[in-house]
Amino acid sequence: MPFISIEGIDGSGKTLQSRLLAAALRKIDIKVIETKEPDRGSIGAEIRSILVTDRTAKLSPLEELLLISAARVSHLDGVIRPALDASEWVVCDRFLDSTYAFQVHKTDVPERLYKEISSVVVGQTMPDLTFILDIDPVTALERRSQRGEAADRDPSEATRDFSRIREGLLVVAKRYPERCRVIDAKRPASEVADLILFELKRSTLL
Amino acid sequence: MPFISIEGIDGSGKTLQSRLLAAALRKIDIKVIETKEPDRGSIGAEIRSILVTDRTAKLSPLEELLLISAARVSHLDGVIRPALDASEWVVCDRFLDSTYAFQVHKTDVPERLYKEISSVVVGQTMPDLTFILDIDPVTALERRSQRGEAADRDPSEATRDFSRIREGLLVVAKRYPERCRVIDAKRPASEVADLILFELKRSTLL
Repeated sequence: MPFISIEGIDGSGKTLQSRLLAAALRKIDIKVIETKEPDRGSIGAEIRSILVTDRTAKLSPLEELLLISAARVSHLDGVIRPALDASEWVVCDRFLDSTYAFQVHKTDVPERLYKEISSVVVGQTMPDLTFILDIDPVTALERRSQRGEAADRDPSEATRDFSRIREGLLVVAKRYPERCRVIDAKRPASEVADLILFELKRSTLL
Repeated sequence: MPFISIEGIDGSGKTLQSRLLAAALRKIDIKVIETKEPDRGSIGAEIRSILVTDRTAKLSPLEELLLISAARVSHLDGVIRPALDASEWVVCDRFLDSTYAFQVHKTDVPERLYKEISSVVVGQTMPDLTFILDIDPVTALERRSQRGEAADRDPSEATRDFSRIREGLLVVAKRYPERCRVIDAKRPASEVADLILFELKRSTLL
């Protein structure tokens, strides 16, 4: 069954679009699970708590890569693969490409290490289609502050970081054009949802 | 300053020998820190708690490798490298070779992944000398049960696992004869301690 990942910077609408996609699929009697990283799987919550803990020595991209990859092992084994084996669709809010964009693109983590870890951890269980919800960092940050998030960070630092991550996701899209669809996430949510369904049909997954 | 690691299966006397070595060094006015893995460093305790938690889906060697390597990043950056930079000796109870023996040797983790991760995480900060406290699993398990440990595991399974890990450590010793010294850990603790000091002098570190 299809494995769909939805990627984008914070404020791009990933979580909402995952929910809308799952709802649209269920409406036509498709069994689907919604999941997300790095929270899910047997150690996901513990890893997430390490990642979000405020500490004097901030975690390095290398530490984050190793921790998120560890969480991905049990997420794949305990959640994603069983669902696919049971003929269910999987809609995943963030997956491998987020790791590239956040922890590898323009960081000191060697790309070779990322590729080696990914090939062992993910193996053949790659998404069939990945939607990259593309949005400029300023709009994304505005959306986040409207929901009362993001007040904890220096805005210009956040904008720089969001730009880097957005750029990383677009690098992924360029590298894997068969798997990735870049969607303009500045459009209204209902249009984005329609575009996602349209692309699923166009790729004959739906 | 010298970086010394002490390896061995549980019950081989690693912790005692680390303590005795540090005490002997302090007696001759050498500044030394004692440390251990995977506990130390800014996320060591959190990682350790994930590793030791009893759970239905047991952690795989791949998950353990990723988690222990993540803990090693902050252990190196926050504890080991600062001590070496401050001209202190470092005596470390378990390090990289334990990871090979426990998580890689005769498991499904590809050795290439282990090497790639180790080279990025550890880099040039390899131990100058590694003592492998070699002991047969039966004696090690007897010692552990005398201290009231190990009652939680099936003895024949534990023996098999200890044999595999011991074998892994001996593989390391054979691969890196310049760095590793295999010590017969069945001898009385004081003799083992003397042998360690003798080897340190012979290698001109002391």
